[in-house]
Amino acid sequence: MGGSIGLALRREGVAVCGFDHDAARAEAARELGAVARLAASVEEAVAGADLTVVAVPVGHVADVVIDALDAGATLVTDVGSVKAPVVAEVEEARPALAPRFVGGHPMAGSEQEGLAGASADLFVGATWVLTPTGRTDPRVFAEVRSWVAAFGAEPLAVTPELHDALVAVVSHVPQLAASTLMNVASAGNDEHAVMLRLAAGGFRDMTRIASSHPAIWPDICVANRDAIVGALDRYLDELTRVRSIVAGGERSCSSCWRRRARRAATCPPASRPVRTCSSCGCPSPTARA
Amino acid sequence: MGGSIGLALRREGVAVCGFDHDAARAEAARELGAVARLAASVEEAVAGADLTVVAVPVGHVADVVIDALDAGATLVTDVGSVKAPVVAEVEEARPALAPRFVGGHPMAGSEQEGLAGASADLFVGATWVLTPTGRTDPRVFAEVRSWVAAFGAEPLAVTPELHDALVAVVSHVPQLAASTLMNVASAGNDEHAVMLRLAAGGFRDMTRIASSHPAIWPDICVANRDAIVGALDRYLDELTRVRSIVAGGERSCSSCWRRRARRAATCPPASRPVRTCSSCGCPSPTARA
Repeated sequence: MGGSIGLALRREGVAVCGFDHDAARAEAARELGAVARLAASVEEAVAGADLTVVAVPVGHVADVVIDALDAGATLVTDVGSVKAPVVAEVEEARPALAPRFVGGHPMAGSEQEGLAGASADLFVGATWVLTPTGRTDPRVFAEVRSWVAAFGAEPLAVTPELHDALVAVVSHVPQLAASTLMNVASAGNDEHAVMLRLAAGGFRDMTRIASSHPAIWPDICVANRDAIVGALDRYLDELTRVRSIVAGGERSCSSCWRRRARRAATCPPASRPVRTCSSCGCPSPTARA
Repeated sequence: MGGSIGLALRREGVAVCGFDHDAARAEAARELGAVARLAASVEEAVAGADLTVVAVPVGHVADVVIDALDAGATLVTDVGSVKAPVVAEVEEARPALAPRFVGGHPMAGSEQEGLAGASADLFVGATWVLTPTGRTDPRVFAEVRSWVAAFGAEPLAVTPELHDALVAVVSHVPQLAASTLMNVASAGNDEHAVMLRLAAGGFRDMTRIASSHPAIWPDICVANRDAIVGALDRYLDELTRVRSIVAGGERSCSSCWRRRARRAATCPPASRPVRTCSSCGCPSPTARA
């Protein structure tokens, strides 16, 4: 992610200075052209910078943002996939400096793709969430917002808490759901395993999700624990309801419920018809009633 | 599915005769070239046929197979995605004729794609499950098997019950899991709905699964109820365990469990290391222990 931002900034003509604790990775970023020069410390990297972007694993974001603010950075954002605990930690630890920081999360690529997948075009057309709070300096927010737009992304401002609830639903829980399903599938015997490898369609999509980089997930599960557990609980409740529909062989309501899912996946919200199923009371028309 | 089989058979030089209760669809199949001529009834269609393929929704397969056997078909197979109840119904209803029938399920395309997606190449490289039983005439099985191979598919013989357990895990439960997740996501407010449409990565895979044709699912959920409920129960158990791992913030075991899922998605069974996690006892090495 940091590599893609570096490339996007340099394409805008910015003299990018980079710092990474891992000297080999820093050098690789320089060779790729994602940074023009390397700094030996956070302090050196942020000195005189118009914009400081913190691109580190989510468990380290708050610490590095605080280091950057302490070093005098005037305008700081990050790209971590969890926002509320990070923003809260920065605002609690440095109330006087926190207005210079606005949290960010580009909904593109992966935190773990590394430099090999870096591209200046990664953010074109992608949503880039920003999470200003009542403490954020409006000029800081406006400045970061214009950088995001310069990368071709669509800035979307929400509260840190809403961001975390949303990504729990659209990213973290789908990942956990797919991984869990893979574990259930692989718990079978060898015949199962052979079949799994040959399976078509939806399962391949699931395995693609499940095989994404596991190293970042413990951090995310810890950082966004409450939102993930809340979304998982809603998922478990709904899945238990589905289980009883299937177990009961309620053909019409199973169809009704599936049509609702299909509509959610394909229709814009405003165009969704809201009626009530006569069999189960769910907010959708019955299929066969 | 029937259209693709017709095209594949005609490419092999077979004079395909088709019958469909829906006269317009029958005519469309003829215009497409999937059948050389149309019959006015099942009886007329199977008269003198070397092979009879039943391609109808899963809830109607047994009835049509029985009709075909009664009409004198000497070699019958089907392409439905649930096998045990269909095979059992045929064997119970027509014990003397059932040896001429072997259940089949090509793991390619969709039952609902219709003629527009028909292709003679649909089955090339795909697994085509056949479900002979102790009552199946071995010559019938061998003949169907050779047709399947002629289509470029890889025949895989398993019991009807194992087939149903496998597809519950690799196809039916993933579909239900994705649809349920979409319902949970769409239950949020309008901000949620906007964000969902902009979300990246895994969620798009989920929505692709969830938006597949809902019309066939009630039939499948009824026909394969027991296997689906069994797999859903295992999924619910495992997901509840994951929920408590996340809620407890057990970083090392969350990682351990995710690595197991990733290995299941990417490694052939024989290459999987089996060790025991020292923290949770699950059969995988710990990541950070």
